[in-house]
Amino acid sequence: VKRDIITIDDLSNEEIENLFALADTFLPAHPEDGESDGPARVRGRLDLADKFILASLFYEPSTRTRFSFNSAMHRLGGSVIESADPMTTSVAKGETIADTIRVIENYADVIVIRHPREGAARVAADYARIPVINAGDGGHEHPTQTLCDLYTFRREKKSLKNLNVLLCGDLKNGRTIHSLVFALARFGARIITRPAEGLELPPHVRRRLENDYGCITVPKEKIDSLAEIPDIDLVYVASKEHLPFESPADIVVNVQLRKKDLSQFDVCYVTRFQSERYSSGEKKSAYPVVDREFLSKSHYKKTRVLHPLPRVDELAYDIDDDPRGAYFQQASYGVPVRMALMATLLGVGKASLSQPKAAKESYSNSEGIACPNPRCVSNDDAEKRYLVPRFWVVPTTPPLLRCTYCEVEVKAGCVGSISTRRYYTDTSVLKSMKLPDVIVFASEQEAQKAGFEPARTPARKSLAAR
Amino acid sequence: VKRDIITIDDLSNEEIENLFALADTFLPAHPEDGESDGPARVRGRLDLADKFILASLFYEPSTRTRFSFNSAMHRLGGSVIESADPMTTSVAKGETIADTIRVIENYADVIVIRHPREGAARVAADYARIPVINAGDGGHEHPTQTLCDLYTFRREKKSLKNLNVLLCGDLKNGRTIHSLVFALARFGARIITRPAEGLELPPHVRRRLENDYGCITVPKEKIDSLAEIPDIDLVYVASKEHLPFESPADIVVNVQLRKKDLSQFDVCYVTRFQSERYSSGEKKSAYPVVDREFLSKSHYKKTRVLHPLPRVDELAYDIDDDPRGAYFQQASYGVPVRMALMATLLGVGKASLSQPKAAKESYSNSEGIACPNPRCVSNDDAEKRYLVPRFWVVPTTPPLLRCTYCEVEVKAGCVGSISTRRYYTDTSVLKSMKLPDVIVFASEQEAQKAGFEPARTPARKSLAAR
Amino acid sequence: VKRDIITIDDLSNEEIENLFALADTFLPAHPEDGESDGPARVRGRLDLADKFILASLFYEPSTRTRFSFNSAMHRLGGSVIESADPMTTSVAKGETIADTIRVIENYADVIVIRHPREGAARVAADYARIPVINAGDGGHEHPTQTLCDLYTFRREKKSLKNLNVLLCGDLKNGRTIHSLVFALARFGARIITRPAEGLELPPHVRRRLENDYGCITVPKEKIDSLAEIPDIDLVYVASKEHLPFESPADIVVNVQLRKKDLSQFDVCYVTRFQSERYSSGEKKSAYPVVDREFLSKSHYKKTRVLHPLPRVDELAYDIDDDPRGAYFQQASYGVPVRMALMATLLGVGKASLSQPKAAKESYSNSEGIACPNPRCVSNDDAEKRYLVPRFWVVPTTPPLLRCTYCEVEVKAGCVGSISTRRYYTDTSVLKSMKLPDVIVFASEQEAQKAGFEPARTPARKSLAAR
Repeated sequence: VKRDIITIDDLSNEEIENLFALADTFLPAHPEDGESDGPARVRGRLDLADKFILASLFYEPSTRTRFSFNSAMHRLGGSVIESADPMTTSVAKGETIADTIRVIENYADVIVIRHPREGAARVAADYARIPVINAGDGGHEHPTQTLCDLYTFRREKKSLKNLNVLLCGDLKNGRTIHSLVFALARFGARIITRPAEGLELPPHVRRRLENDYGCITVPKEKIDSLAEIPDIDLVYVASKEHLPFESPADIVVNVQLRKKDLSQFDVCYVTRFQSERYSSGEKKSAYPVVDREFLSKSHYKKTRVLHPLPRVDELAYDIDDDPRGAYFQQASYGVPVRMALMATLLGVGKASLSQPKAAKESYSNSEGIACPNPRCVSNDDAEKRYLVPRFWVVPTTPPLLRCTYCEVEVKAGCVGSISTRRYYTDTSVLKSMKLPDVIVFASEQEAQKAGFEPARTPARKSLAAR
Repeated sequence: VKRDIITIDDLSNEEIENLFALADTFLPAHPEDGESDGPARVRGRLDLADKFILASLFYEPSTRTRFSFNSAMHRLGGSVIESADPMTTSVAKGETIADTIRVIENYADVIVIRHPREGAARVAADYARIPVINAGDGGHEHPTQTLCDLYTFRREKKSLKNLNVLLCGDLKNGRTIHSLVFALARFGARIITRPAEGLELPPHVRRRLENDYGCITVPKEKIDSLAEIPDIDLVYVASKEHLPFESPADIVVNVQLRKKDLSQFDVCYVTRFQSERYSSGEKKSAYPVVDREFLSKSHYKKTRVLHPLPRVDELAYDIDDDPRGAYFQQASYGVPVRMALMATLLGVGKASLSQPKAAKESYSNSEGIACPNPRCVSNDDAEKRYLVPRFWVVPTTPPLLRCTYCEVEVKAGCVGSISTRRYYTDTSVLKSMKLPDVIVFASEQEAQKAGFEPARTPARKSLAAR
Repeated sequence: VKRDIITIDDLSNEEIENLFALADTFLPAHPEDGESDGPARVRGRLDLADKFILASLFYEPSTRTRFSFNSAMHRLGGSVIESADPMTTSVAKGETIADTIRVIENYADVIVIRHPREGAARVAADYARIPVINAGDGGHEHPTQTLCDLYTFRREKKSLKNLNVLLCGDLKNGRTIHSLVFALARFGARIITRPAEGLELPPHVRRRLENDYGCITVPKEKIDSLAEIPDIDLVYVASKEHLPFESPADIVVNVQLRKKDLSQFDVCYVTRFQSERYSSGEKKSAYPVVDREFLSKSHYKKTRVLHPLPRVDELAYDIDDDPRGAYFQQASYGVPVRMALMATLLGVGKASLSQPKAAKESYSNSEGIACPNPRCVSNDDAEKRYLVPRFWVVPTTPPLLRCTYCEVEVKAGCVGSISTRRYYTDTSVLKSMKLPDVIVFASEQEAQKAGFEPARTPARKSLAAR
C-alpha cells in the first residue's frame, strides 16, 4: 500500500523520529576539512534509489524545495524529470490535476508537487498509484518544510521535547507555519506567538490546536516571565503532560511558580510576509523584525533563529554571522530529510513506515454545501469537471464540516435526509444518520431551494430524544 | 548512416512492428502487486544507453511528450539536457534553428524537438549529424504520438490489421491525427470520421490517402450499417486487399453484404479542439463529445477509447472508470515506445532499422514559387536567412509541389527553363526537364516579372508531342 | 582551499595550458566514422565526477553555455540541478544572491551562475564554500567563453603564441570580448580592432591593456601593411617581448621593417550587436559584416573565423561551408573545456591548479564613494541590504578606484581620514594611509557634506613631503 505525505498528520511522531534517525546517517559524522565554517551537508552519491525516477512538478516558484528534492534524489542515485514552470506544460492547454497526475504516474516512481491551489496535493494523491509528496499547496500545508524545521530543532537542541518556540511574522498565510504548529503541539512544545498586526494564527488553526491537540491558550499577561517581551500575543501550551500547570484552572496560580519554564526561548522561528497571497495594497506597514538588537534580551541567549527562507526584511543580515542563526543550516537539512523521506516511501530506506491509518469517512454531496475557501482546489472551474466538495465532519456543537482538500471549516446550516427530503437545523442530527443519506446545506433557504422541507420533529427535540 | 524520425513515413510497417516487439520487452510481463488497478508501466533502470545524452528541445508546452521522452532516457540509463521554454535560450536573441542544432548536436547523442513552425523538425534533421526525432512541429506531424497510438491499438486489440477506427473532433488541425491516418491506411484500417463542423480532414490529407495509400472514400449513406450513428462523415477504406469489396464500382453493391464489417468499432480516437492553432473568435460552438451515453450504442461494445490528451470537454470524465477507456494506458505506453525508438536510433536496441530510403529528389529555386503555408518554417523571417523553398513534385495533372518541410501542397502555375528563359503553362513539362534547369512560378505574371517569355510550343502541344 | 573562476585573471597562463592538455584527453583522437564532416566532439560518459552535482543557475537566457556545462557534467558522470528561468525561483520573491547561494551550496558541489548584474558572480563566490564559475555577469566577463575561444585558437593554430587577432563588431558591450582581450594580451597576441561605430573597446579596458598588460596602442595609419583593410581602428601590441619593435618610440620607424608581422590574420573574431544591453532606439545602423567577400582579401587566406554565437546578421551564412569558419567547432569545444575546468575544480581532473593568489587588499566604506556603474550588483536595491561598495586602488595619478565586483573604475575626488576628519584633494595621499582609516569621496562637496574639513597641509605639499 502506497503512502502519501500531504499534511504533517500523515506521519506519526514515531515515524518522524525514525525518518530523522535515517537522515542522520546521510550526513557526515565529521564535517570535512575546509567546511568547518558552515552548515553540515550531504556529499557524494549512494545507489539506494538508482532504479527510481522522481517527478518534480512545481506550479509555483521554488528554490529550496525544488533544488533540495532534486539534489536528494541525485544523492540517492536516482533520476529526476521535472517541470519548474507550469506554462511549459499542458496546464497551458487547460489540463486538470487529476489528468496530469494519471499521466505522470506512469513516468516516475514518486511525485513531488507544489501548486497554488489549496488541497491540490490531496487531489494528486487520490489519483496517483505512486507516492505523492506535498511540496506546498497554496496557503494550506508544506509538510516537508516542517520536517526540516523539526529536524533542525532536534539537531540544534538535541531533542524535540519540551521546547519553547517563538513564532514571528505572518502566522496567517504561511503554510509552513500551519504544518509546524500542529507538529509542535504533537511533540509537546510551548508555542508563543508574535504575529504581525492582523496576521495572527487563523481561527481554524487555533481551533484545531485546542480540539485535536489539547492545547491551552494563555494570554501573555498571565505569564509574568513574558511581561517584558514586546509584541507577544498568545501562548499555546500543548498536551497536558507538558503543561507547566495541572489544569486550565491552575494557570493563573501556577505561572508564578513556573516562571523559569518560559524564561528562555529554544527557537525563534521567523517568517516573511506572504505578499504573493495578497492582493496589492493589502500589505501591512508594521512587520516584526528579528535583528541583533531584538536578540539581545536574556530570553534569547541560547535561542536558535530559524527561517524557512526566502527572507525579505524581517530577518536582518546582521545575524548571519551570529552563532544563533541556524537558517542556512535549516536549508541545508532539506537534503538529508528529503532523502530519508523518499527512500522510505520508495521502500529502500531503513526506516519503516507503519501502515496508513484507515482513512476517516468523509461526507460528499455535490448538490449540498461547497467549501467556502475560494482558493480551494474544489472551487477551481477546471477541477470542478470531476471534483465534488468533500468534508470530514468535526464533532463539535454545532458540527463543522472540514474540507478534506484544504481543511478550511464551514458551519453546517442545516442537514437534509435524501430519503425523507426533510431537513434539520440542529446539525447534531448528523450523528444518527448514514452518510450516503446525508446532504448538508449552508442555510435553510438553500435546503428549501433544493426542495427539502423542515423536519416534523424540531431539531432541538430530535437531539433531546437521543 | 543516421536515421531521423520526422514523419511516420520515415518508418516502414516492418520497422514499426520491430520497434513494438522491443517495446514489449521493457514492460513487465506481469503487473506488480498493487498495480493491477491501472495501466502497465515501465519500472527500474537499464544500462542500455548509459553512455548517451538526450537533448530535449521544447519550443511549445508539453507534458506527456517531454516527460515520457525524458523518463524513457532515464529508464535506458542515459542522461538528459533540456530546454522547456525557448525564451530561456538564444531563441530570445534571434538564433535560427539551423544554428541552434549545429551547436546542440555537439552536446548530445540524440535530439528531440518540438517547435511551433511546421517543418522545423525537418530543418533540424537536415543540419544535425545525430538522430533527430520530431516531437511535434506545428500542425504538421507528431510521429511518436502515432507510434504510441498504434502500440496501444496493438496491445488492446492484439493486432494492427483490419481495424475499424472512428476519429472524432478536430481532424483539421490535430497533427497527431494526420500522422495517424497515414499510418492506419498503411496498416489497412477502415477509417471513419466524425469531425467537428468545419474541422474535417484537410484536402491535402485526403488527397494523400487516395493517391499515396490507395484509400477509397465512401460517404456514410452508402454503408447502411452506419446509418444509425449520428454525425459520421466519411469512411476511408484503405489499401485494396483490406477492402470489404472488390473495386470502387462494387461499393454500393457490396456494402449490403459486408454490413458486419463496420458494425463494431475497434477504436474511438478522440481529439480536442486545437485552440492554440486558432485566432480568437474562430472557436466553433458545437464540438462532438464522447461520453458514457455516446458509448452506449452497440457499435461501441468492444471499443477502446483513446485520446492523445490533454482533454478539455470533448471526452467526459464519466468514462474514466469504464474498462473501454484506454487513454491513460495510451499515455503510459509513451515510455516503452520511446525507449525502443531511442535505443534503436542509438544502435543499442535489439530492433534494427533498415537503411533509410534514398531521399526523393527535390526541387528548389529561391527565385521561384514559395510555400503557401504561412506557418511553414520556410516562411519564417529569421529562417529565411539560409532556407530556400524546397518541394517534391507530385506527379498528378496538373502537377503539385509538396513542400518538403511542412508537406503543404501548392499548384504550379507555370514552369520555366532557366537555360532558355521560356515558361510553360502546362506544368507536365516538368517530367522532361532536369531539376537544376527548372524554375516554377505561381502564375504567368510572376514568370514574366522574372523576365521569362512564353514557350514557342504551346504547353498542350508540348505535352501531346511526348 | 576552493578556487572560483570569475574573471579570466583567476587562471594563470600555465593553468590555462594545463586545462587545455586535460581537455585534449576528452576528445577522440580520431573522429568516428561518419563524423568526419563536422566538428570533433566528446562522446560517451566517464565516471570521474560521478559523486558530484552541478548547480546551473541561469538568470539570463543561454543555449550554448547552459547546455554545454550540463552536457560536460553528464559526460563526467555527474548530475545536474538547475534553474533556467529565475522567475521560477525565489528571485521572484525578492531573494538576494547571497542568500540563494548560501542555500544552493548545500545542494551541489559546484555552482555555475549567469546573472544580468555586473559583479554578481563575484558576490556568489564570496558567499559559497564550493567553487563558483561565472557563466556571464551582465556586460562584465564570461571567462569560460574565453577559455573556449583560446582553446579553439590553440587547436586551429597549434599555439597560443604570436597570434594576430582581428576583433569585429560590438567591442563595447560584449563581455566575451573583454575577457578575451585580456587573455590575448597575456599570451602576447597582436589585437587589431574593427569596431562598429561607437562600439569601440571601452576606456577602462584600454587602460587595463596598457597598465596591466603593457600593451602599446598603434593607430592603423602607422602600420602600412594594414592600409588597404577597411574599417580597422587600432592595434594593440601586447607585452614587450612580443613587440615587433623595441620601444614605443621605435614604432614608426620599425613598422616598415616588420610589415610581414601583420600581413596575415590568424583569427577573425566576430561578435553580434548586444541589443539586450541597450535601450530601444539606441541600435546603430552600420554594423561591420563578415562574409565571403570580406574574407576574399589576402590577409584572410589562413584565417579562422570565430563567433561566440548566437549570430544575427554580422556573420553571413555563406561561410558556413568555408573551411575557415570555425564557430561551430568553437561551440563544440565548450564540452571538453568545461569538463576539464569542472573536473579540476572538483579535484578529480589530472590538471592541478596552483593555490589562489593572495587576494589584493580592497577598500570599502559604505559612507564613501559608490560604484558609478548602474548595472553593478553593488547598486542593486535588494543586494544593497548586505553589500557595500568595495574597490581596489589602482596606483595611477590621480588614483582610480576599480570596483571589485564589476571592475568599472571611478576617479577618486578626494580622500578623507576617518580619525582626523580631514580630507585631501590629492588622492595620492592614499599610499601613506592605512585602509581602515580611509574614506574616499567623489568630490569635495561630498566630503564636506559628510562633515570632513580640508586638510591643513595642501594635498600637493603632502605629496611632496613624502
